[in-house]
Amino acid sequence: MTEHWQIGVDLGGTSFKCGLISPEYKIVARNHAPTHALAGPEQAAERIAEHVRALLKALPVRAQVSALGICSPGPLDPLTGTLIEPPNLGWRDVPFARMVSERVGMPVTLEHDAKAAALGEYHFGAGRGSDAMALIIVGTGIAAGIILNGQVYRGAHNSAGEIGHITVDVDGPICRCGSNGCVEIYASGPGIISAYEYAAHTRVDSAEVIAQAAERGDENARRVFARAGRALGAGMASLAMVMDISTFVMFGGVMQAGAFVLEPTAQALKHYSYQSVGSRARIVLAELGSDAGILGAAWRAAHG
Amino acid sequence: MTEHWQIGVDLGGTSFKCGLISPEYKIVARNHAPTHALAGPEQAAERIAEHVRALLKALPVRAQVSALGICSPGPLDPLTGTLIEPPNLGWRDVPFARMVSERVGMPVTLEHDAKAAALGEYHFGAGRGSDAMALIIVGTGIAAGIILNGQVYRGAHNSAGEIGHITVDVDGPICRCGSNGCVEIYASGPGIISAYEYAAHTRVDSAEVIAQAAERGDENARRVFARAGRALGAGMASLAMVMDISTFVMFGGVMQAGAFVLEPTAQALKHYSYQSVGSRARIVLAELGSDAGILGAAWRAAHG
Repeated sequence: MTEHWQIGVDLGGTSFKCGLISPEYKIVARNHAPTHALAGPEQAAERIAEHVRALLKALPVRAQVSALGICSPGPLDPLTGTLIEPPNLGWRDVPFARMVSERVGMPVTLEHDAKAAALGEYHFGAGRGSDAMALIIVGTGIAAGIILNGQVYRGAHNSAGEIGHITVDVDGPICRCGSNGCVEIYASGPGIISAYEYAAHTRVDSAEVIAQAAERGDENARRVFARAGRALGAGMASLAMVMDISTFVMFGGVMQAGAFVLEPTAQALKHYSYQSVGSRARIVLAELGSDAGILGAAWRAAHG
Repeated sequence: MTEHWQIGVDLGGTSFKCGLISPEYKIVARNHAPTHALAGPEQAAERIAEHVRALLKALPVRAQVSALGICSPGPLDPLTGTLIEPPNLGWRDVPFARMVSERVGMPVTLEHDAKAAALGEYHFGAGRGSDAMALIIVGTGIAAGIILNGQVYRGAHNSAGEIGHITVDVDGPICRCGSNGCVEIYASGPGIISAYEYAAHTRVDSAEVIAQAAERGDENARRVFARAGRALGAGMASLAMVMDISTFVMFGGVMQAGAFVLEPTAQALKHYSYQSVGSRARIVLAELGSDAGILGAAWRAAHG
């Protein structure tokens, strides 16, 4: 009997990562390449196809790859497989799933990276067994991938999950999006860097540097993460109350600050939630790292 | 051929209202009675059954009532038809749908009042034709009934839609729920009354009195509604962004303040929403008044 394997591809602004996935959803072989050098979508599709063909050489006898799933930053259309305007790539309205499919000769699906990572963590990682789960990605931006009863929640216009722009202070600082008091101002990597740089009157390269400073006892770093966690937890409380979410899987560079950000997040989630919602909610760390997107994209390719 | 009619019952803290509903979803006959005098759930079921039997006398020949739907304030379990702890009635864990069903000899369903009213406005009122709708009830409390693709959105534990306790200011005033900065503090009837009483250094009986004062040019009344609308619109923006809601149907006593509350609500919804979400969102007033619950409860009884 033929074994059905899959391939998952995580296409990001700096690199793409490919994985060959067994029927038990283990990543058996991998490869990756930078994206910044790509001249455009045609070349990107071609390079991904080359890497996919390389992975196929690791396929056992009697196994067959039945589906290829790609995930990417949005906005994108998961139904038509079109990249609408992926950040950092400068492309527009590219029918990327079809372009890759023509080159590899198998069906290809396209999924938003946060939603693919959420599917990965839900099926194979920290979200296993949850009935209503949100993967919260806290990095350059803040987004949620929401899984209800095993299905990705998309909303009527495929724009659900914009947790980064929930308002937690109607009088708060102005945001890049034109609003003010958004969660991202306080808890995104750039927001944390700006707040720390002002308070400590210095320059830093990344939120990781500030996490290390917090570890060493730097009070400014600790205060910035406490404030980030409070805003993040208040936004997650809104999500918990309007959508009845009980499991939050935390992911992204900012989570490297560990308890400095997680404790205030958990406290705020409980404090700003209504009654039973807050006591039911649990926060866990993502388990799969960047494999979540690869596995989730492949899962979606196989299950539609 | 037998015509299938329905009966809808709106069970509130002060009265219950019954309607006999034609196949075209017109309320053809009605009756109502106060609830405060009821000794307990047994008597309530009996009195409702009496009112239902009275309505059945208005049923045309060849017509038959195939389903009875009741709506009530939560918390309740719509699957088992159990009232868990209805406010103002002092009952606990009452299998009310079964109790009424045994007395009227037909299937009876139980639905949360906000969700029933949302179904009513979606099918027969201001929400017709919308793809993702939230009925926002702004009265003593603030709650949302959410309809996605024609279905009530319940969440994993049937507690979705708690928009009244979304945090719009992490440093805001303390709330009855134990949190602070909740939408209800600013925009509920009691919240508006408290804010106005403090500002105007007077006592008022209801938010309607404050709406009349705003109409007459009372600056304190106008400021209180402006603040209420800003908080309400910011909370609705969170709902729009996490669930991708595009149609908001506004309902409840506070809406009697008209443009004094609706204009700042619409401005805040747009300001605090992310990009396309805010420009897509539209706010309309509910059309059906208290009939929305009766019609929505009956619709749910007929369609499961």
